[in-house]
Amino acid sequence: MINVAVFGYGTVGSGTVEVLMDNGDIIENTVHDRINVKSILDLRDFPGDKYESRIVHDVDEIINDPEISIICETMGGTGAAYKFTRMALEAGKSVCTSNKEMVASHGAEMIALAKAHNCSYKFEASVGGGIPIIRPLETSLTADVILSVCGIVNGTTNYMLTKMEKENAEFADVLKKAQANGYAEADPTADIEGFDACRKIAILASLVYKKTVKYEDIPTEGIKNISARDIKYAGHLGRKIKLLARYESNNNIRYAMVAPFMLLPENPLYHVDDVFNAIKVTGNMLGDATFYGKGAGRLATASAVAGDVVECACNLGKSLTSDLSAETVSFDGFKKASRRFFVRVGAEVTAEAREALPVEEEVKVGFYDEFAFVTKEMTEGDFAVAKEKLGAGIINFIRLEDTSAI
Amino acid sequence: MINVAVFGYGTVGSGTVEVLMDNGDIIENTVHDRINVKSILDLRDFPGDKYESRIVHDVDEIINDPEISIICETMGGTGAAYKFTRMALEAGKSVCTSNKEMVASHGAEMIALAKAHNCSYKFEASVGGGIPIIRPLETSLTADVILSVCGIVNGTTNYMLTKMEKENAEFADVLKKAQANGYAEADPTADIEGFDACRKIAILASLVYKKTVKYEDIPTEGIKNISARDIKYAGHLGRKIKLLARYESNNNIRYAMVAPFMLLPENPLYHVDDVFNAIKVTGNMLGDATFYGKGAGRLATASAVAGDVVECACNLGKSLTSDLSAETVSFDGFKKASRRFFVRVGAEVTAEAREALPVEEEVKVGFYDEFAFVTKEMTEGDFAVAKEKLGAGIINFIRLEDTSAI
Repeated sequence: MINVAVFGYGTVGSGTVEVLMDNGDIIENTVHDRINVKSILDLRDFPGDKYESRIVHDVDEIINDPEISIICETMGGTGAAYKFTRMALEAGKSVCTSNKEMVASHGAEMIALAKAHNCSYKFEASVGGGIPIIRPLETSLTADVILSVCGIVNGTTNYMLTKMEKENAEFADVLKKAQANGYAEADPTADIEGFDACRKIAILASLVYKKTVKYEDIPTEGIKNISARDIKYAGHLGRKIKLLARYESNNNIRYAMVAPFMLLPENPLYHVDDVFNAIKVTGNMLGDATFYGKGAGRLATASAVAGDVVECACNLGKSLTSDLSAETVSFDGFKKASRRFFVRVGAEVTAEAREALPVEEEVKVGFYDEFAFVTKEMTEGDFAVAKEKLGAGIINFIRLEDTSAI
Repeated sequence: MINVAVFGYGTVGSGTVEVLMDNGDIIENTVHDRINVKSILDLRDFPGDKYESRIVHDVDEIINDPEISIICETMGGTGAAYKFTRMALEAGKSVCTSNKEMVASHGAEMIALAKAHNCSYKFEASVGGGIPIIRPLETSLTADVILSVCGIVNGTTNYMLTKMEKENAEFADVLKKAQANGYAEADPTADIEGFDACRKIAILASLVYKKTVKYEDIPTEGIKNISARDIKYAGHLGRKIKLLARYESNNNIRYAMVAPFMLLPENPLYHVDDVFNAIKVTGNMLGDATFYGKGAGRLATASAVAGDVVECACNLGKSLTSDLSAETVSFDGFKKASRRFFVRVGAEVTAEAREALPVEEEVKVGFYDEFAFVTKEMTEGDFAVAKEKLGAGIINFIRLEDTSAI
């Protein structure tokens, strides 16, 4: 028997217990040994819970338990989770986590610690929930130069954008609904400001680049400024607005970014609606491969944590870790990236806008108080200068994604 | 330096050489050693080819070369490829292949041979071309009971169905075009009869079930009977026709099959057009994860072969093999599978059809010489009986896929 402990009996933690216990037979079939959730660390009690008797409140009880060889860290955050993860790895216990903040902030540190103590630090669940993306990147797409990793990695914002589009609704109304039905948190900042997506693309970019990409330096825009009007314009252009998190490395320009983009139907990400996630990876030989599925959700995410547990269980006594250095890197290519922009300005600054930006195509859907257009292809740097110049005259702008993904 | 040989310098073989050599730096970055294609086995000479000097005609030259530790078998078929693969594995050389016939027919045998000689037999490229599917199934989706593997795994037929739909064209015309531009072979039997898809789903089902699924026993229908009229009916029903290869295991009914289905837009496979492939895997905890990309093509497939080479190179001296027993299995659930069918009969057998089949909905698109309808949900077994009864009265039938994939 291989004993496992779970840190944090919340949504993903309880899901992980359920997956490991309920799917015990199929897992045993692969591991050739039984996985048992021996202890669950949580500050709370869970009277009446099926696994009530396994709840412990003191982390030392688990760290000092020589029978426990694998930890599932599903606490989230970088406070206690950071401390406990270090303790576990230092005790030679492998850690499997869904905690993206931790991986984005301290991934390389934990990997080094795992190596030093001959155990593993695995985090498939930290990006894309149940969608396998980290392991394919690390073990399948290994003969390619990765030119791009571009995805919809935040289910909450994708759900909101889909609702806005389908119901012709405004951001604030959709946010309220999303909060009411549990798709958005009471404090939705991390989702709607793009911070969550930023951490996820930082993780993926780090794995591709094999150095720690500083998420703080990734240009990140959320969806707060997207209005029903923007959705209407997008529809008129035959496009949908999606919040993309992307890492691009081509023609000597390398950058990561998070921002809303207008996509065409030829792009497989166009079809990704509601809470679903999808990540498109482009290799120089492979072309595009897209991974699509439930990016969040209790059991989908837990399935990925449990998959990591299975791999650790099959490799007890070995250190399975990503090739990721603690050396940090910030990419400098963003300003040189070139694309078209959809821009809306107040009707009164039409002339200034025409002067500041290369208008390629006017877009008219019946709002006479503003002037909307698509620019010619231009660099982010040049656009930023024009945007600065136009100041509050710009009502909103959204980037166009024109490289058909397939 | 790690020396590799390639068996068969055709489309995929030459692509594999290109990937391994041109991406040498990035591969070295992962393997921490240089991969070198030392020898290429082919009966032909390639005067003027960049790697002309590495061509050898005698397999023994490679088998007896102690410097060569990994073989890429890209010959195809089960003749010489079978013999040479055995020779390589018996000599302790790992084999990475794109040869689906070989894997479907002799996969377990080769795996056992690899284990016995402490080397590896890898075949990511045998299904889905460049799309990672075998490794995710084996290493990521390991905590789930796999309920379904359902995909579009043949690019030729998907290209043809897409053309028929977009150009309102007949099968024979589209086939000719596909042959002219290289998307279909001179002898298209393996593709259009579904045999290629059948071997691929046999491989995937075998990996899930961990026993060798006999591809000969998988009910397989191709797309030869699909006509422009069928496409028109499908459009009227808001559906597209796709050739699906599927393994299903749910409610104690287990089967594999290959046949055209009518899909709704809610199914991610609906959006997979042209030569693209996609495979949707459903786990009891995960839900659906879909893998999408170029299912064929020289460099995409070569990228997958090369990815296997990278894994073998990182694990020299170890045996990496799938958990797949040579024990064969044929599933018995097909007749019990339950779904709706779209059926067209000659107008003169309308009454008989109504008697033989439970008509749920008539479908009228303006062809008055026939009677077209959708049945109520019924089992494959019951449908087969009715089909037998109606005989030549049935013009065509196509199954409906109604379980929304997401």
